[in-house]
Order: sequence, then structure tokens, then C-alpha cells
Amino acid sequence: MMAADGASDMKPFALEAWSRLRLDQVERALERWVTADANPGCAHAAPAALVEAMRYAVLDGGKRLRPLLVLAAHEAVVSDSSRGAEAALRAACAVELIHAYSLVHDDMPCMDNDVLRRGKPTVHVRFGEASALLAGDALQALAFELLTPEDGSVEPAQQARLCGLLARAAGSVGMAGGQAIDLASVGHTLSEDALREMHQLKTGALLQGSVLMGASCGQPGAQALAALQDYGAAMGLAFQVVDDILDVIADSSTLGKTAGKDADNDKPTYVSLMGLARSQAYAQDLLAQAQQALHRSGLPNTQALAALADMVVNRAH
Amino acid sequence: MMAADGASDMKPFALEAWSRLRLDQVERALERWVTADANPGCAHAAPAALVEAMRYAVLDGGKRLRPLLVLAAHEAVVSDSSRGAEAALRAACAVELIHAYSLVHDDMPCMDNDVLRRGKPTVHVRFGEASALLAGDALQALAFELLTPEDGSVEPAQQARLCGLLARAAGSVGMAGGQAIDLASVGHTLSEDALREMHQLKTGALLQGSVLMGASCGQPGAQALAALQDYGAAMGLAFQVVDDILDVIADSSTLGKTAGKDADNDKPTYVSLMGLARSQAYAQDLLAQAQQALHRSGLPNTQALAALADMVVNRAH
Repeated sequence: MMAADGASDMKPFALEAWSRLRLDQVERALERWVTADANPGCAHAAPAALVEAMRYAVLDGGKRLRPLLVLAAHEAVVSDSSRGAEAALRAACAVELIHAYSLVHDDMPCMDNDVLRRGKPTVHVRFGEASALLAGDALQALAFELLTPEDGSVEPAQQARLCGLLARAAGSVGMAGGQAIDLASVGHTLSEDALREMHQLKTGALLQGSVLMGASCGQPGAQALAALQDYGAAMGLAFQVVDDILDVIADSSTLGKTAGKDADNDKPTYVSLMGLARSQAYAQDLLAQAQQALHRSGLPNTQALAALADMVVNRAH
Repeated sequence: MMAADGASDMKPFALEAWSRLRLDQVERALERWVTADANPGCAHAAPAALVEAMRYAVLDGGKRLRPLLVLAAHEAVVSDSSRGAEAALRAACAVELIHAYSLVHDDMPCMDNDVLRRGKPTVHVRFGEASALLAGDALQALAFELLTPEDGSVEPAQQARLCGLLARAAGSVGMAGGQAIDLASVGHTLSEDALREMHQLKTGALLQGSVLMGASCGQPGAQALAALQDYGAAMGLAFQVVDDILDVIADSSTLGKTAGKDADNDKPTYVSLMGLARSQAYAQDLLAQAQQALHRSGLPNTQALAALADMVVNRAH
């Protein structure tokens, strides 16, 4: 699959083939773990109706960027990728559950009131608002269940590290905090600094958290870890800048969600702040920063991380 | 504070004095931990508006039954209560955050649509629905942040145990699962078994989880742990039976929330299923089961757990 270390600069990295294998693995794991009886040690099974809404929210062919970042970061820091593989797979699924729950809650009428997500009716449209609320809540808890298996497959100290990273990436100093700033900013003009702060929390924290969780499944040195943190920050911000660009230039069928929502909702975006051309240049600049950080990490196996950053910036949806 | 072990059967346990000290400790800890800069290691502070809604939801003088159960269970299993005290205090606050978030979401218009909670306007009435949704989401994440301190104050394996217990108590095999059953049961007649199943998840899981989290901060033997599990199950169910009774016999000013909501909402309750007198007898029966379990545990310091179970069943609000 992966080019031998020494040859990595010589031939292009086959991201699609690399991704296909990992996506298969993630989909199978999610299929297995988002079920009524995923906790055999528990006295009760999860209620079928709740699990149906949770599965609808998760098992829908999203891009799975966050799980891929977890797995790519894990592979970057270990010489033998079977080491820490179970922890990395669980972390990959856990970040996706957090992402999925955030979309479910974000789409609700009291938030973005969106009826279409990835080309399907949103969870609250399909199951009702109360079920959407509960499914989101349960998905967040399930993320931490996945990180704390009771079968000894993940070392306790590793479980604790992953839980700590995920909680901070998801909560008030991360994603939920960014959404709160977003909410408060509707109809207001934000400075570039304020917009960056919002996105660093709203989208960046979980993307960066994905990289750090993957890396924590190995034992990166301090220099490598700092570089991966920079990679995650640049790539996370680039993701949002490109999202803002696509909201303007793509149509709904390509995006799989309602295009032009940000402008309609009078939300501040990079495009509204700095214009389309400067936003596009900024995205490329962030991509270069991400790639430089990988170079700085001194890690040999960063091709997948590099290719993922490239995909994030140059994607069409 | 606490009677010497040998004398514990001789004089009545002073629950109020015992609780006062622990409640002070919990209130001070929540006050300190539910703040914008509770995560000094993070690059960003939590946004002020979000933190305000989170604090409003948490720092409001609830009964703090769950934190008291955590601390009482911890004291029951250790001879020196300073051992594991930091973990137990964090666990106590974490379960309260989960409880608080569940109330915030539960009160929202798409769920119970309640405007009054503990004598105050509910979070969505005070801050708007979107902020209530986000505050609840962030409180759930914060619970796991509290359980994973980065300062070395809680041993990693202990962090992992607590995260695992809390996630399962809160999620689809616990509280959120119970709420989903509750939601689906409105307007339906439930059997006693189905009603019990619902409540074991909805309220029982987090109450029992509180006991188990507290116990996990020490090193209880298998027999003691099984007995505490039984105690938690009986006490958790008793709590809900009494809740149903109080919803019928108490008035709103005593309850601090709208009384008679269950009947108005056509929700199945123990009183609607078995009548008032049989419900009251059932609550006493569950109390006896809880006390027998404590006796069976063989633990010397169970006076606080015993007194809490008694308070749960014989409370007026």
C-alpha cells in the first residue's frame, strides 16, 4: 500500500487506494459498534428506535475525513501500524460519532434548520426533533464508550489520553464553543481574527483533535507532536476556508447539502470577509503551512497526511 | 463527622451534617470547573456566552443527589477517604454535569417543553433554544474533561474506568436510552416490566453509575461491588417511583418544577399503573432492598449510602 519510506518522495502517493482500505475498515467498525447490543456487558440493550436514528445519522456515506486523519496520523508515528491499531480504529470511529452528532444537532430547527444533509432528509425531518436531540446526545456518549472498551483491547492509559483529547476537542473549548461563537455572530461583522478564532474552535478543534488522537496511539517525540499540532491547525482552518468557498461556488447537488445557506443566513464567512480570490489564495497558503509542518515533523510516513491536506483544499465538495 | 465504624449501628447517622460538608466541596468544585478558563492547557478559552448558559444550568442549587452518592460510595469502600478523593470529587461533579445537561435538553420545547426548573426559568427560556442545545452538548463533553485532568491528579487507569462508567450510564444503554423509551411511550399503556425497564435506563443508570463511579475510586472486592450494584439499582428505581408519587401529591412550589406534568402529558407512571397506595408500598419495598444490599456488602462505612436511600424514598420534593 504505502511507498517504502525512502522512496516516498519519488512516486505519487495513491490516496484513493490508501483511503479505500481504511474507509472499509471504518465503515465495518461503525456498522458493528453503532448497534443496540454494542455493549454486551451492560444489563440493557439500547432501544431500537434510538439506535435506528443514531445509525441513520452515522451510516450514511459521509466523507469520513476525521477518521482518515486519525488513521493517517497513527500510521505516521508508528513503524508497525498494527501497534495501537485497535485504539486508532476506535478513535477514528469516536471522532466520526462526535462529528455526526454535531451535524444532527446543527441541522435542527432551532439551529440551522436544514432539511437536507448528504442528499438525505436530516435526522429531525426523518425521526422528529426530540429523537434527533436524543440521538445526538447518545452519539456523543457512544464516542466515549468506544474509547473505553472493557475487553482489554486498549490499554487504560491510552483510553484516558483519547478521552481527554476528544472531550476537549468536542466541548466548550472546542467544537461546541465554536458553534456558540457562530450562533452569536449571525448578522454581525467579524474581524478576520474573530472569524479565525471561531473556526479554529468550530471545525479546527475536532480536525486537529483527530490528528492528535491518531498520533497518541503511537509514541511521537515532542518535535513530531508539535509539528503534527501545527499541521492539524493549518489543515483545520483550510478546511473551513474551502467550505466557505464551496458554499458560494458549488451547487446543492454537488455539495449534498443546501448551498448558499451562509449568505442567506447572514453568517460571516471568509468569502464575505476577504472576497473569493483572497480566500482561495489563503487556502493554498494554509495548505503550504500544513505541508511544511509535516516536513518539520521529521516523521517518515506522512504521505497520507500530506495527501489528505491536499484533498481538503482542492476538493470540489 | 462520621461515626467510628464499630459504633455505626449505635447512634443515628447525621446525614445533614455529612451532606453539608460534601455539598460545599461539590459547589466549590463546580464553581471552579464550569468556567471559561477551566482548561488552562487549551489554546482557547470557552466563549463567555456559552459558559454563562452552562453555569446557569449547573450552579443553581439542585439537590446534588448524584454527587452525594458518588462521595458516599467512595467513602464506603476506602478506609482513608483522602485516597482517591480527587478522582471521587471529579466524578461527583461529572455526574452532576451529565444530569444538568439532561435537564436542559429535556426541558426544551421539542421534549417536555417545560418553562420552570428548580423555581427558575429553564435554560432555553432564559438563553434561547439554540444556546440551550449547545450548553447541554458542552456540559456532556465537560463531564469527560473533568474526568481526564492533565495535571496528574488522577491516575490514568482510574480516568479510563470513570469515563467508561459515565459514558455507559449516560448513553443509549443508559439515560439517553431511557429517555428515548419514555418519548416513544407517551400515550401508550406500558406493562410494569416495560415501565421498570424505562426507568432503570432513564434515571436508574446514572444513579447506579454514581454509586459505581464512587466505588471505583477505591478498590472494592467483588462481593462488595455486586452489593453496591444492587443498592444502586434498588435506590435508582425507588427514586423514580417516588418522583411519580410526588408529581401527583406535591404542588409546583414544593417541587420547584411544574407538578402534574406527567398526567397532563399522558405519560405512563407508577401511580397511573399501580395506583398511589401500591406505589408507596413499592417505594418502601425498594428502600428495604437497598438497605439489605448495603448489609450484604460487608462494608463498614455505608451509613451515608443508607441515609441517602432513606432520604430518596422519604423526601417531600
